[in-house]
Amino acid sequence: MRPYTFFERLSKAFHDSASLSKILVVSTISGGGLMVYSEANASYSNNGVETGTKRKKKVVLLGTGWAGASFLKSLNNSSYEVQVISPRNYFAFTPLLPSVTCGTVEARSVVEPIRNIARKNVEMSFLEAECFRIDPGSKKVYCRSKQGLNSNGKKEFDVDYDFLVIATGAQSNTFNIPGVEENCHFLKEVEDAQRIRSTVIDSFEKATLPGLNEEERKRMLHFVVVGGGPTGVEFASELRDFVNEDLVKLYPKAKNLVQITLLEAADHILTMFDKRITEFAEEKFGRDGIDVKLGSMVVKVNDKEISAKTKGGEVSTIPYGMIVWSTGIGTRPVVKDFMKQIGQGNRRALATDEWLRVEGCDNIYALGDCATINQRKVMEDIADIFKKADKENSGTLTVKKFQEVIDDICDRYPQVELYLKSKGMHGIADLLKQGQIENGSNKSIELNIEELKSALCQVDSQVKFLPATAQVAAQQGTYLAKCFDRMEQCEKNPEGPIRVRGEGRHRFRPFRYRHLGQFAPLGGEQTAAQLPGDWVSIGHSSQWLWYSVYASKQVSWRTRVLVVSDWMRRFIFGRDSSRI
Amino acid sequence: MRPYTFFERLSKAFHDSASLSKILVVSTISGGGLMVYSEANASYSNNGVETGTKRKKKVVLLGTGWAGASFLKSLNNSSYEVQVISPRNYFAFTPLLPSVTCGTVEARSVVEPIRNIARKNVEMSFLEAECFRIDPGSKKVYCRSKQGLNSNGKKEFDVDYDFLVIATGAQSNTFNIPGVEENCHFLKEVEDAQRIRSTVIDSFEKATLPGLNEEERKRMLHFVVVGGGPTGVEFASELRDFVNEDLVKLYPKAKNLVQITLLEAADHILTMFDKRITEFAEEKFGRDGIDVKLGSMVVKVNDKEISAKTKGGEVSTIPYGMIVWSTGIGTRPVVKDFMKQIGQGNRRALATDEWLRVEGCDNIYALGDCATINQRKVMEDIADIFKKADKENSGTLTVKKFQEVIDDICDRYPQVELYLKSKGMHGIADLLKQGQIENGSNKSIELNIEELKSALCQVDSQVKFLPATAQVAAQQGTYLAKCFDRMEQCEKNPEGPIRVRGEGRHRFRPFRYRHLGQFAPLGGEQTAAQLPGDWVSIGHSSQWLWYSVYASKQVSWRTRVLVVSDWMRRFIFGRDSSRI
Repeated sequence: MRPYTFFERLSKAFHDSASLSKILVVSTISGGGLMVYSEANASYSNNGVETGTKRKKKVVLLGTGWAGASFLKSLNNSSYEVQVISPRNYFAFTPLLPSVTCGTVEARSVVEPIRNIARKNVEMSFLEAECFRIDPGSKKVYCRSKQGLNSNGKKEFDVDYDFLVIATGAQSNTFNIPGVEENCHFLKEVEDAQRIRSTVIDSFEKATLPGLNEEERKRMLHFVVVGGGPTGVEFASELRDFVNEDLVKLYPKAKNLVQITLLEAADHILTMFDKRITEFAEEKFGRDGIDVKLGSMVVKVNDKEISAKTKGGEVSTIPYGMIVWSTGIGTRPVVKDFMKQIGQGNRRALATDEWLRVEGCDNIYALGDCATINQRKVMEDIADIFKKADKENSGTLTVKKFQEVIDDICDRYPQVELYLKSKGMHGIADLLKQGQIENGSNKSIELNIEELKSALCQVDSQVKFLPATAQVAAQQGTYLAKCFDRMEQCEKNPEGPIRVRGEGRHRFRPFRYRHLGQFAPLGGEQTAAQLPGDWVSIGHSSQWLWYSVYASKQVSWRTRVLVVSDWMRRFIFGRDSSRI
Repeated sequence: MRPYTFFERLSKAFHDSASLSKILVVSTISGGGLMVYSEANASYSNNGVETGTKRKKKVVLLGTGWAGASFLKSLNNSSYEVQVISPRNYFAFTPLLPSVTCGTVEARSVVEPIRNIARKNVEMSFLEAECFRIDPGSKKVYCRSKQGLNSNGKKEFDVDYDFLVIATGAQSNTFNIPGVEENCHFLKEVEDAQRIRSTVIDSFEKATLPGLNEEERKRMLHFVVVGGGPTGVEFASELRDFVNEDLVKLYPKAKNLVQITLLEAADHILTMFDKRITEFAEEKFGRDGIDVKLGSMVVKVNDKEISAKTKGGEVSTIPYGMIVWSTGIGTRPVVKDFMKQIGQGNRRALATDEWLRVEGCDNIYALGDCATINQRKVMEDIADIFKKADKENSGTLTVKKFQEVIDDICDRYPQVELYLKSKGMHGIADLLKQGQIENGSNKSIELNIEELKSALCQVDSQVKFLPATAQVAAQQGTYLAKCFDRMEQCEKNPEGPIRVRGEGRHRFRPFRYRHLGQFAPLGGEQTAAQLPGDWVSIGHSSQWLWYSVYASKQVSWRTRVLVVSDWMRRFIFGRDSSRI
């Protein structure tokens, strides 16, 4: 009972001071409780040496998805106190969720407690609650612990922050189509995948019951996937494998009743992939008996039927047993509310600058699916750029003078480099010359501002929006953690590009996304892979690449071992069909 | 599409005949659908050779627990058509449920689809539904598919049987104590174990939230186990290990707040075990900080407090965060209803004879926790026994004459053998002599009926009721399957003991339970084992025995591999605390 008494004694000592007790509460709720406790004690009661120990900056992180977890995993600076708030106390390896829906991988194998993810030297605590309001004025977030909490009726509380990192992700987008919310399954969370799994088994059990006619059985075993993106396609292939490799053995009659339909509003599935992959996938699905209906826009869903409109305007209604809705992402209410507060109400996601700072807010960062980077355009800043390069204020710019700032410009405006690459140009000189030619002055090597404008006018067409993928979120998390780690140091020695519209340099280099490739598993141990440099690989070999990449990307050794052993188990014993 | 057209064609052909279409429905719903179909076809349309193929006897099996699954696993006679009906489509290895509550073993690792359990040569089909009424008059069971089935609103159907095997098990017994049903967790099903697991994690997360005082946190982390039987004790030890080995690392502050209390109404825990085990367990729990309150009878539960009465009549009320109720078993409604119909309304479980046939019913068998064997008493049949032994009707019985029937008597009345053993007697002669001595006639070796009565009058005290354990249920299932396998053969050549009150012999030898020992895991890699011959072993060695016995008893290789790998994973990585 020793530590407890010590704890109680401390508790009493801090009882009267409001600010101290707030820190106390924050500390005691933390995963690192007792240790934190004694540290707080050290910094506040060392009679008078308060100035010697600096108050830790409090970082509140909302969300434990890819962005949040990778931020937490990379943050490595003990001068922060991190408070993580999320309705789920674990990180989930979402790219394996389609595998979880059919039991190829177990739910438990793709999750890791968030408390295990933070580094030991970072003081981190976790609250299982949902943030429902962000107040940038008072620097507070308001949270609600999830339904069913039975503690005194109190469910809401607020938390102060010095820095706020918003990484709440997005929610499924129903496009307000009637009946979708009520009747469809989504595939964002681990629980969704578990529910889909038991619904699939249920469908087979239901279709086995007596008193049903052939038509009803067929309806129950009609699985509809809406959305031909990577998730929808992977789920459809997983389901097909599950049915053909495992379920038909136990429900042999079902084989001829099962139907899988994939509805896609666009003209092709997997449109974000190379055309070769799209074609291969459509052909393979045709062979596998997955009915791909392209150009089908869902207009209505009720409890037994789904209605879709073709491009010709014809509406057809199909009876279904289960629908998985995987069409895109929408904004979460808390983010929507916050966007309204800061005047971004008409946007789809939180706009940040290239350093992931929410536009117009101090010390608030947003990353992952809830945010988009608002890349500054060259043409918006063209006058300032000219001024920065033209140091002597001569009104003209030589190529040589411009080359002195070009690295900073390319750092600040990545579209410049992309544009050069897309035009096959080797350097900025080529581009500037083009500006002069267009203005008819081929003779000189000096440009005026109009000539510079004309040279760079096409550059901004290369501004790219980042896709809402795990890869982007993870890289953003790591980037932001590295910025936080070196905040103090970079304050003194900024390492970013020149400030075009101000003095000095930016503290950090802006975030730059490196695309490492993308997979689309197509079932039957075949995967399509699109790797950097538009290298496309389809088939069994990319399936093995997929296995090794996904195994290596696991967040912990525990999940790595579990995922690999799940795969082995599936090879040996097949997937389990018990309804649990 | 070939098989399907064939199927449709058949469907039409049988459409007009009511009895045929019934068979049709029964066949098509089966897991073995198409094959069954063609067999039905074979027996019904081979113009005129109907007599050549015998109609298969239909066995309806209710339940997929230990009794049902072991029946199914052992049945090996293709002349039956088995229809299994149960609300769950899998068998669960229930002795590992306490391990599932804390994630030592995963839920998926202890279940096996029931369709995988039946032998290939037995025609088996499964319906996921709950039987709510048994009608022995019309030889039908009435079933309801579980809530949420959305097929035409129809949820009920009936199934005919030739033989009915009732193996529905029992439910938790709340003893009608107010508030138990609403506020306590039970531990009968896999879902119960999963719910307990997430409630434990929830409790830790809730206790971490701000705005709570010390007392509330303590309440939330107070886990109460009611019932000191093997399940309750094992759960308490598992929970203690989970908290001490894994959770304290992630929630270090919780260590001093967690409290585990075990309430037991009797004077000791584990009363069905040897006294040495009970003492060891109580002492170990004391050392481990599990508060064992003996002689505490729960009288009331509300949403935050549990009230228990001591033997002295004093009622104390304890605040709790979670209660696991594990005190004993009660009768399921369908069994209760059936018992009323057959005049057993005032019993706790279905009474069967020693061949597991429900008393007073034709072709209905009951086994496992829903049934008890009503062992026939020697004294009830003493006159008939005398008559059988005294073949010449001389009115007296020599020991020699009695010895001719003694094997049959011992087979029919196992208590005779138990009595001899308990008295240290070597044969029936000793017992009969005792009867003569008591009647004062030491001189002769002949007994009259009064002397026989007096010799055997104590024997029935050895009648033993079987415990409601997995071991009993499994042995009963295997026994009954073997009887079914040889039903025809034993009809002709009965192999049971002489019928005392009738002519000839019983078809089968009666069921005889062989106790193989019992384990009580006590946490910290220590297990108490009580093996046959009252051999007691406590400690780490019996933990390894436990591991090997439980691994070997798994119903399939898949679950065996999974369970063993779960144990290994736990050794290496600990238990996961993600709330899924």
